[in-house]
Amino acid sequence: MKTETKITVRYAETDQMGVTHHAVYPVWYEAARTDLIKETGVSYSQLEKMGVMTPVVDLSCHYSGVTHYEDIVTVQCWISRLTPARIEFSYATFCGDSEKPCNTGKSLHGCVDAKTFRPINLKKRFPEFYAKLESMVEPDA
Amino acid sequence: MKTETKITVRYAETDQMGVTHHAVYPVWYEAARTDLIKETGVSYSQLEKMGVMTPVVDLSCHYSGVTHYEDIVTVQCWISRLTPARIEFSYATFCGDSEKPCNTGKSLHGCVDAKTFRPINLKKRFPEFYAKLESMVEPDA
Amino acid sequence: MKTETKITVRYAETDQMGVTHHAVYPVWYEAARTDLIKETGVSYSQLEKMGVMTPVVDLSCHYSGVTHYEDIVTVQCWISRLTPARIEFSYATFCGDSEKPCNTGKSLHGCVDAKTFRPINLKKRFPEFYAKLESMVEPDA
Amino acid sequence: MKTETKITVRYAETDQMGVTHHAVYPVWYEAARTDLIKETGVSYSQLEKMGVMTPVVDLSCHYSGVTHYEDIVTVQCWISRLTPARIEFSYATFCGDSEKPCNTGKSLHGCVDAKTFRPINLKKRFPEFYAKLESMVEPDA
Repeated sequence: MKTETKITVRYAETDQMGVTHHAVYPVWYEAARTDLIKETGVSYSQLEKMGVMTPVVDLSCHYSGVTHYEDIVTVQCWISRLTPARIEFSYATFCGDSEKPCNTGKSLHGCVDAKTFRPINLKKRFPEFYAKLESMVEPDA
Repeated sequence: MKTETKITVRYAETDQMGVTHHAVYPVWYEAARTDLIKETGVSYSQLEKMGVMTPVVDLSCHYSGVTHYEDIVTVQCWISRLTPARIEFSYATFCGDSEKPCNTGKSLHGCVDAKTFRPINLKKRFPEFYAKLESMVEPDA
Repeated sequence: MKTETKITVRYAETDQMGVTHHAVYPVWYEAARTDLIKETGVSYSQLEKMGVMTPVVDLSCHYSGVTHYEDIVTVQCWISRLTPARIEFSYATFCGDSEKPCNTGKSLHGCVDAKTFRPINLKKRFPEFYAKLESMVEPDA
Repeated sequence: MKTETKITVRYAETDQMGVTHHAVYPVWYEAARTDLIKETGVSYSQLEKMGVMTPVVDLSCHYSGVTHYEDIVTVQCWISRLTPARIEFSYATFCGDSEKPCNTGKSLHGCVDAKTFRPINLKKRFPEFYAKLESMVEPDA
């Protein structure tokens, strides 16, 4: 399953090069991830209340194009790998109706206890939620 | 007492107008406030651990000039008004060696309990800290 | 005329107080302004290409409530004052279905030439666009 | 050659997890890069005025620890690879006096003409500047 999140580029997100600043894309990834997680029936806000946090361990972004103020971009998001301790999300950002992404990326997240920041086994702690995530995985071709 | 905080304008802080984005100044105010609070002998981090938060209630900024990437700016900060429930900070931002500020502003903060978000009486709860703040006040002329 | 812009609070927009950071609201104002300007038939992107920029001269924000990650907020925006040299926008931000704004604000903008940063007379330079703005003004009660 | 840039974590840079948001690190990398470039005798601001831009093509970040509000971090920066068309910078971020980085990363930049966004040969266009960069390279072990 891949979700699509529409975002209008904000003026504050541009820099003096006249395009979206590169550090904005990880923020869009996060908005896209929020939409994807919600598809499980449990929002990320609820997940935190249930005592789970998923801090970013690794992040990579590849910039093949640019986006401008007021552009409407679509951020595709999917789970590309899943283990009981780690979730990898992948992203492809498209500008307007373009079929070629202007940006692609990945983020790897650890599953930790919200209080202790210690790793947890998501599958043991929330088997139903984990099964739902598992059913959504879209492995890289 | 007025503190001075030096900041080098970051590329990410510019926008496509080629200058520092206006929403960056409140972030600089906050960095300046952090330095001022530290002068009391109690850092803002410690204050939060002591159970106090000071959310912003009112903010105003006046932009009379611009700043650019790599400019070194000085943010002056002082307490302009103080009551047991409210702290008003004032700011003046100078670009390089300029004697005329390019930006001035004020922020009014409530004193609340970190857990309940309810107003607290700072003077009663932390009389020594409050006395220190009081001694630092620089009323507007 | 008042426009309404829907925004979902991003994780990156929160701070360690657990709520939306106060410097995010001016960024939302800007997104709301973008939507309002578009209602004239000329987008702000086009306006810049026509050689006009509208830097912020004054900004004020009043925070009467908080918003959280994943909240859906509505930012109302309208032109509250207009002269050939200045535009004042007003904002009211509502969290979820609340009828009481959690944040209100104003921003005053100068009209300047995009190349020289010198003030221009918007009414003379773009009479049609100015007339359109004028027809949209919603003076404060 | 490695440069070291000191940064105090801003409140606005934290998120509701209580730590620095992961998208802030690339912004710190950029501040570090600014300091490194300045060591060539030509600032990045000057470079842009000379008609060169170096947009990010690839970015990777590895998060092995966290940083908190008011922490003083040191961002080490060096050029790890250089060709006439591409510059790769590497980063290691240390919290306080820690000898183990809490974050490491790389960014790959293309050299493009500031007007056309077309690739340029930096070595041909600015041989002296390129020689200076070359002398600074610190290849990965």
